[in-house]
Amino acid sequence: MNAKFIVVEGLEGAGKSTAIQTVVDTLKDFGVSSVVKTREPGGTPIAEKLRRLVKEEHEGEVVYDMTELLLIYAARVQLVEGVIKPALQGGQWVIGDRHDLSSQAYQGGGRQIDPAMIQTLKKSVLGQFEPDFTLYLDINPEIGLERARGRGELDRIEKMDLSFFERTRARYLQLANDDARIQIISAEQPLAMVQQDIRHVLMNWLSAQ
Amino acid sequence: MNAKFIVVEGLEGAGKSTAIQTVVDTLKDFGVSSVVKTREPGGTPIAEKLRRLVKEEHEGEVVYDMTELLLIYAARVQLVEGVIKPALQGGQWVIGDRHDLSSQAYQGGGRQIDPAMIQTLKKSVLGQFEPDFTLYLDINPEIGLERARGRGELDRIEKMDLSFFERTRARYLQLANDDARIQIISAEQPLAMVQQDIRHVLMNWLSAQ
Repeated sequence: MNAKFIVVEGLEGAGKSTAIQTVVDTLKDFGVSSVVKTREPGGTPIAEKLRRLVKEEHEGEVVYDMTELLLIYAARVQLVEGVIKPALQGGQWVIGDRHDLSSQAYQGGGRQIDPAMIQTLKKSVLGQFEPDFTLYLDINPEIGLERARGRGELDRIEKMDLSFFERTRARYLQLANDDARIQIISAEQPLAMVQQDIRHVLMNWLSAQ
Repeated sequence: MNAKFIVVEGLEGAGKSTAIQTVVDTLKDFGVSSVVKTREPGGTPIAEKLRRLVKEEHEGEVVYDMTELLLIYAARVQLVEGVIKPALQGGQWVIGDRHDLSSQAYQGGGRQIDPAMIQTLKKSVLGQFEPDFTLYLDINPEIGLERARGRGELDRIEKMDLSFFERTRARYLQLANDDARIQIISAEQPLAMVQQDIRHVLMNWLSAQ
Protein backbone atom coordinates (compact mmCIF):
# COMPACT_ATOMS: atom_id res chain seq x y z
CA MET A 1 0.00 0.00 0.00
CA ASN A 2 1.27 3.48 -0.81
CA ALA A 3 1.88 5.83 2.11
CA LYS A 4 -1.24 7.83 2.98
CA PHE A 5 -2.02 11.31 4.28
CA ILE A 6 -4.52 11.18 7.15
CA VAL A 7 -5.87 14.37 8.71
CA VAL A 8 -7.55 15.07 12.04
CA GLU A 9 -9.86 18.09 12.04
CA GLY A 10 -12.11 19.82 14.53
CA LEU A 11 -12.85 22.88 16.63
CA GLU A 12 -10.76 24.03 19.57
CA GLY A 13 -11.14 21.57 22.45
CA ALA A 14 -12.41 18.72 20.26
CA GLY A 15 -9.47 16.56 21.34
CA LYS A 16 -7.34 16.53 18.18
CA SER A 17 -4.05 15.79 19.98
CA THR A 18 -5.42 12.71 21.70
CA ALA A 19 -7.08 11.60 18.47
CA ILE A 20 -3.78 11.90 16.61
CA GLN A 21 -2.16 9.62 19.19
CA THR A 22 -4.99 7.10 18.65
CA VAL A 23 -4.40 7.28 14.89
CA VAL A 24 -0.66 6.70 15.37
CA ASP A 25 -1.35 3.72 17.69
CA THR A 26 -3.90 2.23 15.28
CA LEU A 27 -1.50 2.56 12.38
CA LYS A 28 1.18 0.82 14.42
CA ASP A 29 -1.20 -2.10 15.06
CA PHE A 30 -1.80 -2.14 11.32
CA GLY A 31 1.95 -2.40 10.68
CA VAL A 32 2.72 1.24 9.86
CA SER A 33 5.35 2.33 12.34
CA SER A 34 7.09 5.26 10.65
CA VAL A 35 4.83 8.31 10.48
CA VAL A 36 5.42 12.03 10.08
CA LYS A 37 3.20 14.32 12.14
CA THR A 38 2.39 17.81 10.85
CA ARG A 39 0.34 20.72 12.11
CA GLU A 40 -1.28 23.59 10.25
CA PRO A 41 -0.73 26.36 9.88
CA GLY A 42 2.95 25.55 10.46
CA GLY A 43 5.37 22.69 10.13
CA THR A 44 8.29 24.44 8.38
CA PRO A 45 10.33 27.44 9.62
CA ILE A 46 8.53 29.84 7.24
CA ALA A 47 5.12 28.28 7.90
CA GLU A 48 5.65 28.60 11.67
CA LYS A 49 6.43 32.33 11.21
CA LEU A 50 3.17 32.63 9.27
CA ARG A 51 1.34 30.72 12.03
CA ARG A 52 2.51 33.32 14.55
CA LEU A 53 1.42 36.17 12.23
CA VAL A 54 -2.03 34.58 11.94
CA LYS A 55 -2.52 33.73 15.62
CA GLU A 56 -0.92 36.71 17.37
CA GLU A 57 -2.67 39.95 18.22
CA HIS A 58 -1.16 42.85 16.27
CA GLU A 59 -1.14 46.08 18.24
CA GLY A 60 -2.84 48.75 16.15
CA GLU A 61 -3.12 46.69 12.95
CA VAL A 62 -6.16 44.71 11.85
CA VAL A 63 -5.46 41.35 10.18
CA TYR A 64 -7.97 41.39 7.32
CA ASP A 65 -9.85 38.12 6.70
CA MET A 66 -8.40 37.85 3.20
CA THR A 67 -4.86 38.32 4.57
CA GLU A 68 -5.48 35.52 7.09
CA LEU A 69 -6.66 33.24 4.28
CA LEU A 70 -3.64 34.01 2.05
CA LEU A 71 -1.14 33.51 4.89
CA ILE A 72 -2.69 30.16 5.80
CA TYR A 73 -2.47 29.01 2.17
CA ALA A 74 1.12 30.27 1.88
CA ALA A 75 2.01 28.20 4.95
CA ARG A 76 0.16 25.23 3.44
CA VAL A 77 2.14 25.43 0.19
CA GLN A 78 5.42 25.40 2.15
CA LEU A 79 4.26 22.37 4.17
CA VAL A 80 2.74 20.36 1.33
CA GLU A 81 5.59 20.89 -1.14
CA GLY A 82 8.42 20.85 1.36
CA VAL A 83 7.32 18.19 3.87
CA ILE A 84 4.14 16.23 3.11
CA LYS A 85 4.74 15.30 -0.54
CA PRO A 86 8.41 14.33 0.00
CA ALA A 87 7.43 12.18 3.02
CA LEU A 88 4.68 10.38 1.08
CA GLN A 89 6.98 9.87 -1.90
CA GLY A 90 9.55 8.42 0.50
CA GLY A 91 6.99 5.91 1.79
CA GLN A 92 6.25 7.62 5.09
CA TRP A 93 2.66 8.08 6.21
CA VAL A 94 1.69 11.60 7.25
CA ILE A 95 -0.75 12.48 10.06
CA GLY A 96 -1.93 16.07 9.86
CA ASP A 97 -3.26 18.16 12.73
CA ARG A 98 -5.56 20.21 10.43
CA HIS A 99 -5.27 20.69 6.68
CA ASP A 100 -7.33 22.33 3.95
CA LEU A 101 -10.73 21.50 5.48
CA SER A 102 -9.89 23.95 8.31
CA SER A 103 -9.71 26.79 5.76
CA GLN A 104 -13.01 25.77 4.23
CA ALA A 105 -14.60 25.67 7.71
CA TYR A 106 -12.94 28.59 9.56
CA GLN A 107 -12.39 31.06 6.74
CA GLY A 108 -15.37 29.93 4.62
CA GLY A 109 -17.82 29.22 7.46
CA GLY A 110 -16.52 31.30 10.38
CA ARG A 111 -15.19 34.32 8.46
CA GLN A 112 -17.83 33.96 5.72
CA ILE A 113 -15.37 34.34 2.81
CA ASP A 114 -17.03 33.06 -0.39
CA PRO A 115 -16.53 29.25 -0.35
CA ALA A 116 -16.17 29.21 -4.15
CA MET A 117 -13.26 31.68 -3.89
CA ILE A 118 -11.52 29.44 -1.34
CA GLN A 119 -12.05 26.38 -3.56
CA THR A 120 -10.58 28.23 -6.55
CA LEU A 121 -7.59 29.36 -4.50
CA LYS A 122 -7.07 25.83 -3.22
CA LYS A 123 -7.07 24.35 -6.72
CA SER A 124 -4.72 27.05 -7.99
CA VAL A 125 -2.12 26.57 -5.28
CA LEU A 126 -2.44 22.87 -4.38
CA GLY A 127 -3.73 21.36 -7.61
CA GLN A 128 -5.23 17.91 -7.07
CA PHE A 129 -3.43 17.28 -3.78
CA GLU A 130 -5.86 16.03 -1.10
CA PRO A 131 -5.74 13.99 2.12
CA ASP A 132 -6.57 10.32 1.66
CA PHE A 133 -8.70 10.21 4.79
CA THR A 134 -9.98 12.77 7.30
CA LEU A 135 -11.39 12.32 10.78
CA TYR A 136 -13.57 15.26 11.79
CA LEU A 137 -14.07 15.42 15.56
CA ASP A 138 -17.45 17.03 16.00
CA ILE A 139 -18.19 19.00 19.16
CA ASN A 140 -20.59 21.68 20.29
CA PRO A 141 -18.39 24.81 20.36
CA GLU A 142 -19.63 25.79 23.82
CA ILE A 143 -18.19 22.53 25.17
CA GLY A 144 -15.04 22.72 23.06
CA LEU A 145 -14.25 26.33 23.95
CA GLU A 146 -14.79 25.57 27.64
CA ARG A 147 -12.15 22.84 27.36
CA ALA A 148 -9.80 25.10 25.36
CA ARG A 149 -10.14 27.91 27.88
CA GLY A 150 -9.14 25.47 30.60
CA ARG A 151 -5.79 25.08 28.82
CA GLY A 152 -4.92 28.77 29.22
CA GLU A 153 -4.41 31.88 27.07
CA LEU A 154 -6.56 32.08 23.90
CA ASP A 155 -5.09 33.25 20.58
CA ARG A 156 -6.58 35.81 18.14
CA ILE A 157 -8.83 33.23 16.49
CA GLU A 158 -9.83 31.38 19.67
CA LYS A 159 -11.10 34.72 21.01
CA MET A 160 -13.81 34.94 18.33
CA ASP A 161 -17.40 34.80 19.59
CA LEU A 162 -19.56 31.68 19.76
CA SER A 163 -21.41 32.40 16.51
CA PHE A 164 -18.06 32.27 14.62
CA PHE A 165 -17.47 28.73 15.87
CA GLU A 166 -21.08 27.74 15.24
CA ARG A 167 -20.70 28.78 11.59
CA THR A 168 -17.36 26.94 11.46
CA ARG A 169 -18.92 23.75 12.83
CA ALA A 170 -21.88 23.98 10.45
CA ARG A 171 -19.49 24.20 7.48
CA TYR A 172 -17.40 21.29 8.80
CA LEU A 173 -20.54 19.15 9.06
CA GLN A 174 -21.80 20.17 5.63
CA LEU A 175 -18.48 19.33 3.96
CA ALA A 176 -18.10 16.07 5.89
CA ASN A 177 -21.59 14.97 4.88
CA ASP A 178 -20.77 15.64 1.22
CA ASP A 179 -17.49 13.69 1.13
CA ALA A 180 -17.11 9.98 1.83
CA ARG A 181 -13.40 10.46 2.61
CA ILE A 182 -14.32 12.53 5.69
CA GLN A 183 -15.63 10.59 8.69
CA ILE A 184 -17.45 12.34 11.52
CA ILE A 185 -16.54 11.28 15.07
CA SER A 186 -18.67 12.52 17.95
CA ALA A 187 -16.16 14.17 20.28
CA GLU A 188 -18.66 14.79 23.07
CA GLN A 189 -18.58 11.12 24.11
CA PRO A 190 -16.33 9.82 26.91
CA LEU A 191 -12.71 9.63 25.73
CA ALA A 192 -12.65 5.82 25.57
CA MET A 193 -15.65 5.86 23.22
CA VAL A 194 -14.05 8.52 21.00
CA GLN A 195 -10.88 6.43 20.77
CA GLN A 196 -12.90 3.30 20.01
CA ASP A 197 -14.76 5.11 17.20
CA ILE A 198 -11.53 6.44 15.69
CA ARG A 199 -9.92 3.01 15.79
CA HIS A 200 -13.03 1.45 14.26
CA VAL A 201 -13.48 3.82 11.29
CA LEU A 202 -9.75 3.95 10.63
CA MET A 203 -9.36 0.15 10.66
CA ASN A 204 -12.38 -0.18 8.34
CA TRP A 205 -10.85 2.32 5.94
CA LEU A 206 -7.40 0.73 6.08
CA SER A 207 -8.84 -2.71 5.40
CA ALA A 208 -10.67 -1.37 2.34
CA GLN A 209 -7.48 0.06 0.78
CA MET B 1 -10.75 66.46 -8.03
CA ASN B 2 -10.81 63.34 -5.85
CA ALA B 3 -7.50 62.15 -4.42
CA LYS B 4 -5.73 59.74 -6.79
CA PHE B 5 -3.51 56.67 -6.47
CA ILE B 6 -0.44 56.98 -8.73
CA VAL B 7 2.03 54.10 -9.03
CA VAL B 8 5.64 53.97 -10.22
CA GLU B 9 6.71 50.58 -11.59
CA GLY B 10 9.84 49.11 -13.10
CA LEU B 11 12.73 46.69 -12.82
CA GLU B 12 15.56 46.98 -10.30
CA GLY B 13 17.74 49.97 -11.18
CA ALA B 14 15.10 51.65 -13.35
CA GLY B 15 15.17 54.71 -11.07
CA LYS B 16 11.86 54.38 -9.23
CA SER B 17 12.94 56.44 -6.18
CA THR B 18 14.01 59.43 -8.28
CA ALA B 19 10.85 59.11 -10.37
CA ILE B 20 8.70 59.16 -7.24
CA GLN B 21 10.37 62.41 -6.20
CA THR B 22 9.60 63.86 -9.64
CA VAL B 23 5.97 62.79 -9.25
CA VAL B 24 5.77 64.43 -5.83
CA ASP B 25 7.33 67.67 -7.19
CA THR B 26 5.01 67.70 -10.19
CA LEU B 27 1.96 67.20 -7.99
CA LYS B 28 3.12 70.06 -5.77
CA ASP B 29 3.31 72.34 -8.85
CA PHE B 30 -0.21 71.17 -9.66
CA GLY B 31 -1.37 72.20 -6.18
CA VAL B 32 -1.35 68.80 -4.46
CA SER B 33 0.94 69.15 -1.48
CA SER B 34 -0.17 66.41 0.91
CA VAL B 35 0.76 62.97 -0.41
CA VAL B 36 1.22 59.55 1.20
CA LYS B 37 4.10 57.45 -0.15
CA THR B 38 3.83 53.65 0.00
CA ARG B 39 6.07 50.80 -1.08
CA GLU B 40 5.23 47.19 -1.91
CA PRO B 41 5.49 44.67 -0.61
CA GLY B 42 5.38 46.54 2.69
CA GLY B 43 3.99 49.70 4.19
CA THR B 44 2.37 48.33 7.36
CA PRO B 45 4.03 46.44 10.25
CA ILE B 46 2.61 43.08 9.07
CA ALA B 47 3.31 43.85 5.40
CA GLU B 48 6.93 44.75 6.22
CA LYS B 49 7.32 41.37 7.99
CA LEU B 50 5.99 39.71 4.84
CA ARG B 51 8.39 41.80 2.72
CA ARG B 52 11.32 40.39 4.71
CA LEU B 53 9.97 36.83 4.35
CA VAL B 54 9.76 37.33 0.57
CA LYS B 55 13.12 39.03 0.09
CA GLU B 56 15.33 37.18 2.57
CA GLU B 57 17.22 33.99 1.87
CA HIS B 58 15.87 31.12 4.01
CA GLU B 59 18.57 28.70 5.07
CA GLY B 60 17.48 25.21 4.09
CA GLU B 61 13.94 26.14 3.01
CA VAL B 62 12.80 26.89 -0.52
CA VAL B 63 10.25 29.70 -0.90
CA TYR B 64 7.87 28.23 -3.48
CA ASP B 65 6.70 30.60 -6.23
CA MET B 66 3.08 30.21 -5.13
CA THR B 67 4.04 31.08 -1.54
CA GLU B 68 5.82 34.21 -2.77
CA LEU B 69 2.70 35.22 -4.71
CA LEU B 70 0.36 34.65 -1.74
CA LEU B 71 2.59 36.55 0.69
CA ILE B 72 2.84 39.51 -1.68
CA TYR B 73 -0.96 39.61 -2.02
CA ALA B 74 -1.40 39.28 1.75
CA ALA B 75 0.89 42.29 2.21
CA ARG B 76 -1.06 44.15 -0.49
CA VAL B 77 -4.40 43.53 1.26
CA GLN B 78 -2.99 44.97 4.51
CA LEU B 79 -1.65 48.04 2.68
CA VAL B 80 -4.69 48.71 0.48
CA GLU B 81 -7.30 48.24 3.20
CA GLY B 82 -5.29 49.72 6.06
CA VAL B 83 -3.42 52.60 4.40
CA ILE B 84 -4.22 53.39 0.75
CA LYS B 85 -8.03 53.37 0.84
CA PRO B 86 -8.26 55.36 4.10
CA ALA B 87 -5.77 57.94 2.73
CA LEU B 88 -7.72 58.36 -0.52
CA GLN B 89 -11.00 58.58 1.37
CA GLY B 90 -9.43 61.27 3.55
CA GLY B 91 -8.48 63.27 0.46
CA GLN B 92 -4.77 62.45 0.44
CA TRP B 93 -3.10 61.42 -2.80
CA VAL B 94 -1.08 58.20 -2.66
CA ILE B 95 2.18 57.57 -4.58
CA GLY B 96 3.03 53.88 -4.70
CA ASP B 97 6.49 52.41 -5.20
CA ARG B 98 5.14 49.28 -6.95
CA HIS B 99 1.62 47.84 -6.78
CA ASP B 100 -0.30 45.04 -8.45
CA LEU B 101 1.43 45.37 -11.84
CA SER B 102 4.63 44.11 -10.18
CA SER B 103 2.89 40.82 -9.35
CA GLN B 104 1.61 40.48 -12.89
CA ALA B 105 5.13 41.15 -14.23
CA TYR B 106 7.43 39.40 -11.70
CA GLN B 107 5.27 36.45 -10.66
CA GLY B 108 3.35 36.14 -13.95
CA GLY B 109 6.23 36.96 -16.31
CA GLY B 110 9.38 36.19 -14.32
CA ARG B 111 8.12 33.21 -12.31
CA GLN B 112 5.76 32.09 -15.08
CA ILE B 113 2.75 31.56 -12.82
CA ASP B 114 -0.43 31.42 -14.95
CA PRO B 115 -1.42 35.08 -15.55
CA ALA B 116 -5.12 34.15 -15.45
CA MET B 117 -4.63 32.67 -11.96
CA ILE B 118 -3.01 35.89 -10.76
CA GLN B 119 -5.83 37.96 -12.27
CA THR B 120 -8.43 35.79 -10.52
CA LEU B 121 -6.57 36.09 -7.22
CA LYS B 122 -6.32 39.85 -7.64
CA LYS B 123 -10.05 40.24 -8.27
CA SER B 124 -10.89 37.98 -5.33
CA VAL B 125 -8.77 39.85 -2.82
CA LEU B 126 -8.80 43.45 -4.11
CA GLY B 127 -12.12 43.60 -5.96
CA GLN B 128 -12.28 46.56 -8.35
CA PHE B 129 -9.51 48.52 -6.61
CA GLU B 130 -6.93 49.82 -9.12
CA PRO B 131 -4.38 52.64 -9.40
CA ASP B 132 -5.64 55.70 -11.27
CA PHE B 133 -2.38 56.15 -13.15
CA THR B 134 0.84 54.15 -13.50
CA LEU B 135 4.26 55.19 -14.77
CA TYR B 136 6.26 52.18 -15.95
CA LEU B 137 10.00 52.98 -16.14
CA ASP B 138 11.27 50.74 -18.90
CA ILE B 139 14.89 49.63 -18.85
CA ASN B 140 17.00 46.82 -20.33
CA PRO B 141 17.54 44.52 -17.33
CA GLU B 142 21.28 44.28 -18.03
CA ILE B 143 21.56 48.03 -17.49
CA GLY B 144 19.13 48.08 -14.55
CA LEU B 145 20.81 45.19 -12.73
CA GLU B 146 24.22 46.79 -13.22
CA ARG B 147 22.90 49.93 -11.48
CA ALA B 148 21.21 47.87 -8.72
CA ARG B 149 24.42 45.91 -8.10
CA GLY B 150 26.24 49.19 -7.67
CA ARG B 151 23.99 49.91 -4.67
CA GLY B 152 25.17 46.83 -2.74
CA GLU B 153 23.85 43.49 -1.53
CA LEU B 154 21.17 41.86 -3.73
CA ASP B 155 18.09 40.20 -2.19
CA ARG B 156 16.61 36.77 -3.05
CA ILE B 157 14.66 38.09 -6.04
CA GLU B 158 17.37 40.46 -7.31
CA LYS B 159 19.69 37.43 -7.50
CA MET B 160 17.56 35.76 -10.20
CA ASP B 161 19.19 35.32 -13.59
CA LEU B 162 18.87 37.70 -16.53
CA SER B 163 16.18 35.64 -18.30
CA PHE B 164 13.89 36.09 -15.25
CA PHE B 165 14.12 39.88 -15.62
CA GLU B 166 13.75 39.69 -19.39
CA ARG B 167 10.46 37.80 -18.94
CA THR B 168 9.41 40.32 -16.29
CA ARG B 169 10.16 43.26 -18.59
CA ALA B 170 8.31 41.61 -21.51
CA ARG B 171 5.21 41.18 -19.34
CA TYR B 172 5.43 44.78 -18.08
CA LEU B 173 5.56 46.04 -21.69
CA GLN B 174 2.72 43.78 -22.80
CA LEU B 175 0.45 44.96 -19.98
CA ALA B 176 1.44 48.61 -20.42
CA ASN B 177 0.66 48.46 -24.13
CA ASP B 178 -2.79 47.01 -23.36
CA ASP B 179 -3.82 49.63 -20.78
CA ALA B 180 -4.14 53.38 -21.43
CA ARG B 181 -3.77 54.09 -17.70
CA ILE B 182 -0.17 52.81 -17.82
CA GLN B 183 2.40 55.13 -19.43
CA ILE B 184 5.78 53.83 -20.52
CA ILE B 185 8.79 56.05 -19.72
CA SER B 186 12.17 55.14 -21.24
CA ALA B 187 14.48 54.92 -18.22
CA GLU B 188 17.64 54.51 -20.27
CA GLN B 189 17.71 58.20 -21.17
CA PRO B 190 19.74 60.77 -19.20
CA LEU B 191 18.07 61.53 -15.87
CA ALA B 192 16.95 65.03 -16.90
CA MET B 193 15.12 63.57 -19.91
CA VAL B 194 13.43 60.89 -17.76
CA GLN B 195 12.26 63.58 -15.34
CA GLN B 196 11.01 65.74 -18.19
CA ASP B 197 9.04 62.80 -19.64
CA ILE B 198 7.49 61.97 -16.27
CA ARG B 199 6.50 65.59 -15.69
CA HIS B 200 5.06 65.79 -19.19
CA VAL B 201 2.87 62.66 -19.15
CA LEU B 202 1.76 63.31 -15.56
CA MET B 203 0.78 66.93 -16.29
CA ASN B 204 -1.11 65.79 -19.38
CA TRP B 205 -2.98 63.21 -17.37
CA LEU B 206 -3.72 65.61 -14.51
CA SER B 207 -5.06 68.22 -16.92
CA ALA B 208 -7.39 65.65 -18.46
CA GLN B 209 -8.96 64.70 -15.10
